[in-house]
Amino acid sequence: MKTYNVGVIGAGFMAKAHSMAYAAMPMFFWPAPGIPVRYSICDVTADLAADAASRLGFTKSTDDWRTIVNDPDVDAVSICTPNDSHAEIAIAAARNGKHILCEKPLANTAAEAKAMVDAVVDNNVTNMLAFNYRHTPAVALAREIIDSGEIGTVQTFRGTYLQDWSADASTPLSWRFQSAIAGSGALGDIGTHVIDLARYLVGEINEVAANLKTYIPQRPLSNSTVDKLGAAAPGVETAPMGAVDVDDEASFAVRFADGATGSIEATRNAWGRNNFITFEIHGSAGSIYFDYEHRDELRVAYASDRADRRGFRIIQTGPQHPYGDHLWPIPALGIGYCETKIVETYEFFKAITDGTQASPNFADGLAICHIVEAIQRSHLTDGAWTHVTR
Amino acid sequence: MKTYNVGVIGAGFMAKAHSMAYAAMPMFFWPAPGIPVRYSICDVTADLAADAASRLGFTKSTDDWRTIVNDPDVDAVSICTPNDSHAEIAIAAARNGKHILCEKPLANTAAEAKAMVDAVVDNNVTNMLAFNYRHTPAVALAREIIDSGEIGTVQTFRGTYLQDWSADASTPLSWRFQSAIAGSGALGDIGTHVIDLARYLVGEINEVAANLKTYIPQRPLSNSTVDKLGAAAPGVETAPMGAVDVDDEASFAVRFADGATGSIEATRNAWGRNNFITFEIHGSAGSIYFDYEHRDELRVAYASDRADRRGFRIIQTGPQHPYGDHLWPIPALGIGYCETKIVETYEFFKAITDGTQASPNFADGLAICHIVEAIQRSHLTDGAWTHVTR
Amino acid sequence: MKTYNVGVIGAGFMAKAHSMAYAAMPMFFWPAPGIPVRYSICDVTADLAADAASRLGFTKSTDDWRTIVNDPDVDAVSICTPNDSHAEIAIAAARNGKHILCEKPLANTAAEAKAMVDAVVDNNVTNMLAFNYRHTPAVALAREIIDSGEIGTVQTFRGTYLQDWSADASTPLSWRFQSAIAGSGALGDIGTHVIDLARYLVGEINEVAANLKTYIPQRPLSNSTVDKLGAAAPGVETAPMGAVDVDDEASFAVRFADGATGSIEATRNAWGRNNFITFEIHGSAGSIYFDYEHRDELRVAYASDRADRRGFRIIQTGPQHPYGDHLWPIPALGIGYCETKIVETYEFFKAITDGTQASPNFADGLAICHIVEAIQRSHLTDGAWTHVTR
Amino acid sequence: MKTYNVGVIGAGFMAKAHSMAYAAMPMFFWPAPGIPVRYSICDVTADLAADAASRLGFTKSTDDWRTIVNDPDVDAVSICTPNDSHAEIAIAAARNGKHILCEKPLANTAAEAKAMVDAVVDNNVTNMLAFNYRHTPAVALAREIIDSGEIGTVQTFRGTYLQDWSADASTPLSWRFQSAIAGSGALGDIGTHVIDLARYLVGEINEVAANLKTYIPQRPLSNSTVDKLGAAAPGVETAPMGAVDVDDEASFAVRFADGATGSIEATRNAWGRNNFITFEIHGSAGSIYFDYEHRDELRVAYASDRADRRGFRIIQTGPQHPYGDHLWPIPALGIGYCETKIVETYEFFKAITDGTQASPNFADGLAICHIVEAIQRSHLTDGAWTHVTR
Repeated sequence: MKTYNVGVIGAGFMAKAHSMAYAAMPMFFWPAPGIPVRYSICDVTADLAADAASRLGFTKSTDDWRTIVNDPDVDAVSICTPNDSHAEIAIAAARNGKHILCEKPLANTAAEAKAMVDAVVDNNVTNMLAFNYRHTPAVALAREIIDSGEIGTVQTFRGTYLQDWSADASTPLSWRFQSAIAGSGALGDIGTHVIDLARYLVGEINEVAANLKTYIPQRPLSNSTVDKLGAAAPGVETAPMGAVDVDDEASFAVRFADGATGSIEATRNAWGRNNFITFEIHGSAGSIYFDYEHRDELRVAYASDRADRRGFRIIQTGPQHPYGDHLWPIPALGIGYCETKIVETYEFFKAITDGTQASPNFADGLAICHIVEAIQRSHLTDGAWTHVTR
Repeated sequence: MKTYNVGVIGAGFMAKAHSMAYAAMPMFFWPAPGIPVRYSICDVTADLAADAASRLGFTKSTDDWRTIVNDPDVDAVSICTPNDSHAEIAIAAARNGKHILCEKPLANTAAEAKAMVDAVVDNNVTNMLAFNYRHTPAVALAREIIDSGEIGTVQTFRGTYLQDWSADASTPLSWRFQSAIAGSGALGDIGTHVIDLARYLVGEINEVAANLKTYIPQRPLSNSTVDKLGAAAPGVETAPMGAVDVDDEASFAVRFADGATGSIEATRNAWGRNNFITFEIHGSAGSIYFDYEHRDELRVAYASDRADRRGFRIIQTGPQHPYGDHLWPIPALGIGYCETKIVETYEFFKAITDGTQASPNFADGLAICHIVEAIQRSHLTDGAWTHVTR
Repeated sequence: MKTYNVGVIGAGFMAKAHSMAYAAMPMFFWPAPGIPVRYSICDVTADLAADAASRLGFTKSTDDWRTIVNDPDVDAVSICTPNDSHAEIAIAAARNGKHILCEKPLANTAAEAKAMVDAVVDNNVTNMLAFNYRHTPAVALAREIIDSGEIGTVQTFRGTYLQDWSADASTPLSWRFQSAIAGSGALGDIGTHVIDLARYLVGEINEVAANLKTYIPQRPLSNSTVDKLGAAAPGVETAPMGAVDVDDEASFAVRFADGATGSIEATRNAWGRNNFITFEIHGSAGSIYFDYEHRDELRVAYASDRADRRGFRIIQTGPQHPYGDHLWPIPALGIGYCETKIVETYEFFKAITDGTQASPNFADGLAICHIVEAIQRSHLTDGAWTHVTR
Repeated sequence: MKTYNVGVIGAGFMAKAHSMAYAAMPMFFWPAPGIPVRYSICDVTADLAADAASRLGFTKSTDDWRTIVNDPDVDAVSICTPNDSHAEIAIAAARNGKHILCEKPLANTAAEAKAMVDAVVDNNVTNMLAFNYRHTPAVALAREIIDSGEIGTVQTFRGTYLQDWSADASTPLSWRFQSAIAGSGALGDIGTHVIDLARYLVGEINEVAANLKTYIPQRPLSNSTVDKLGAAAPGVETAPMGAVDVDDEASFAVRFADGATGSIEATRNAWGRNNFITFEIHGSAGSIYFDYEHRDELRVAYASDRADRRGFRIIQTGPQHPYGDHLWPIPALGIGYCETKIVETYEFFKAITDGTQASPNFADGLAICHIVEAIQRSHLTDGAWTHVTR
């Protein structure tokens, strides 16, 4: 079976997830579409990179991502760095013919994203965007149910992504609160995950009407380069303060191309919520509800069930459902973050070896950037419905 | 203890609820602020009214509501008729000095509602609007928690009211789908319940941005005068069709006077949802979640809980909570629709005997009519933020 | 429609529940099988009884229950007094031809219960036992589903009744902790509710194997005659202590006559649980789960559902389900304790006027006393399987 | 960092889980206690073994497990074969000084298990038993909470493991239904998981009282050697039938050494349940509830919370909780089966390198075999309380 040398750029928590999945994917999907070899990894210093190579099982390490994208022995790269570096790395990788799995969001601006899409198209490399939640079996099942027409015509989509790690005003001003690096706040960080799910499940979005809000306008400066999300640093009470210039909360309505409507809320300031990715979809013949915190389940209501025996069915995904033959032999044995990344890696390699479009790919990422920009324009124009550029 | 003769106008399901509560209230709240006497009831024909009197335990009956509002022996009236008749009845009752408990929404237009408010103010009668869900103990507890500052400054409110009785396209064209009688669709019928909860818990609403939608533009005509909600009549397949001119779905964003934001969705077309009244409130120091389908519970997350022992607490309301001394001695023994109406009736009589403002009252109803109208204006002006008239 | 004069003996929380239901029943079930008239009520002193009459809407009051059972104008009585008084009152009432609705458990011993059954049979009076939870619509639906064969042959029943009001060691030594009055502890007080559900849903119980436990052997003496469940009295730290001679926890296995097995746990010492009545039933073709704290729902799993669309259905009871036409027009509008007692009262009056056996009746109560005694015998004989006397 | 050559014996679903965890463990736990090298794997034929080596990333393969246990280059072995082969393999491995991670249950009889314990003790090898569920972070948190005294003295434990894959009577007669290979049915297969959790959380078990039941006494013979759990083979309707000689349902009460009691139910015949591992623990000062199907959560009720703000807290495990620093940076990002096995592997290697006892180890496995045998004895002696041999 063909092996592929993989380079991973970045060595934080996402690099860990990618590396685990590269190692584990063929164990689950066999015969595998290709065998990923953990070949080279990059971190900000040579020492950190060498440590990452030991830790994550890579043969080589470097402190310069160009070493990886220029290495003729590298077949594919994972981009696991902050948002503002995605474009430069991805474009260079594409020009060198590397297949690319890029962490989300694709880029901070639609302009950057467009350049990325052009690069992967021009160089004909497989490109995938790491919106992993669509690879949760229950989400893939939702797609199957919608596609089959079981719930009729989709009428509404309602989605949330609620976390609480930035709800504490003493959470330091990491790069995630700086628009120059992060592009936006909750909107780009987590709101885009829900936008991805909405597009995956219901289709293209034509218009948005939005309301953005920053609850905590200043945060303590941190001299740590490590992004520990909500972890307050010692001495934070006396730290100088810096301005937050991204949204803490993004709330927006959407209109889909096929006529359905929707509403989405994303915030990292919701005390008590941690990874509360939910969607509820109402169709003319049924409804679907999903909550990632209970991700082994999909709830489906069918209008066609006998009226006095009707109600949401709690379907626990297992061998009978998407990817089920390859994961675990009993429903609810347990889908975790690992499993979603293993499926993602499988899809990436299947696209590489089949020459098909990955799901989602850079074009999806560009479409999402356009939606994000339309949301920002709507917010600045009194929340009115705003067309999404294509 | 002073008794009060009550007249109930209308004899449908709401009249049953009011009558039950008039009978039961003193059993729960003792010493009662007053003893309601089921004195007179009105239905559309004399026979139906007489039957209602037997069924609901009233002494007298009539087919003319004026008989009740003109009767000097009547102290208070319940208005349980369709929305378009509220204003005329209430104004007449007020002029005759009757205290009034009016079913929601107060009126189909703010103009009507304003006339009703003027009438009750001019005649100095106690006036209350039957948004019963705020009288659920868990909702009253939410208010207590917010008022106490336990969750800090409220930042967002997210509410829903989802039902499915009109999701079936064969549901007949009852008065609830006709704007001339109902005023609006899901918006006025159930959306106003959530607006009431939002105002009760978070405060006055200044601006709205809205999206209304009609999914099923035509429905079979029904010659039944009885409103059986989603029950399809026999022969409905061949019935002539009539146009629906109200919304099936109302989705809108709100801005509260104190700076918080919110989003609300109401629809009667959500398969699998029946009485899905929910709200989630994020504050600077905690969050609250409520779901009426599990109404014995309030979920509260406190930022102040030790970080590794933090999580939503599922508080089951009982003797320690609002109205708890008067309801049942064990939490979760069971709050049902009856209990919410018994509390409502208690609040009505307390307002009568104390001379205080009932909660909610006609002024609240007028404010809600203004919000509904602002929602309708926003919908017609591209969903842009629209000021609510005061 | 025929009216029936009702006497209520006892004036505590159960008397409130009965009185409310007598007043409300015809409003829900119309034409009613009979119109209950709140005629006479008894409490421990004449003053308390007079107050109860005002509060609960009775015409007459007395401090001697014999006045009620001897009154020729009384047609039916509710017995709402502590367990040890049930037999004497019920036997006297039966001898005077009164129909009887008795609070549970029927009696403290099977011997007493047998005498009660004999009395009602000999005097041919309608007799009913107030295990109200079987009258929850979702429970009645469970029965309907089992009877229809939808889940095949029942194999196991697992039930709980968990509360926490006695978990605090400072909860005073009320009558509920004294076997002379209460007969047993959690077993008789709440365990019998689950036994009733087990018999109602699965059938007669032949054998039991049991384990009883007292966690808190001494409690502070209280000089209050009022039973406030878990409410600690002021000064309780210095109160003299008395011995608890009843079980705090009853855990037992059961074998049904038809071959199914089961396990039941009842305790009032489960912190965080309040009225946690649950059952799960596994059949050869499906399963049922019920949790009274979420009593508007019944969860049902069908083996016959397509394997990849199978899962517990969350059925919310409404107009389509047992008693639904008479309760509320929308599922989940809300079943509370009131609604269960209104249904119970309807069943009582239906039995009176139809001359049919009420469900459950005194014979059921006797059967349950036999089961309780078998449980106590099993506990004393090393937990071995013990036959239930018939 | 020291590397360890690992041999995996067996190549089914458990071998996949072990192999994934060997590859991934150092990525999560760094610096790792040791680096596992996937060295050699054994399956029933040479071809299958070679395929497994490719699939799971091993260097060598064999169809004879002795090749692995005799190989001086092998440091540690995973035993992932059916229950009846554990003893022979483990004893041989121990004699050759290999560290051993053995799938559960340890053995089919206490006698076998005793020989295994003797072998590992005599040869001083690290030995661990793969009851992975105790390595779920929420379960480890439960242990931490109990150990800290936060819920006081434990009084009761109530556990379940419910599945439905054998509920269908057409499920073939795999080895799992044959006592000669499997030892017992639901009891040994899944009941032992709950026994492990009970011992881990509450302590040693002294006595049991049990009821075992076989619902489906005959099943179609299958000529497949592959264990696909509940998957019915084609042509099953006409297959000859064979006798099931293991339990379909095990229900038993337990008494812990420290005075607490408990009850446990395990069955693979519960339609609608898939991996329903739950426990509820009541202590004198609080309660804990866990449900593996929602395994990112632990529910904890504290008596010490203010009475009117008391209720189960839904704690979502994350960086603040056991293993949290090493898993994912946000609670509810997702614990799956992978994560539980990665933690297990870490604990195995920590024990190897520290020279400490693994948790759980073979001695725990022996204790569980003694409990299983006591359960079987109790069942045969009328369900009476039966002492567990030590």
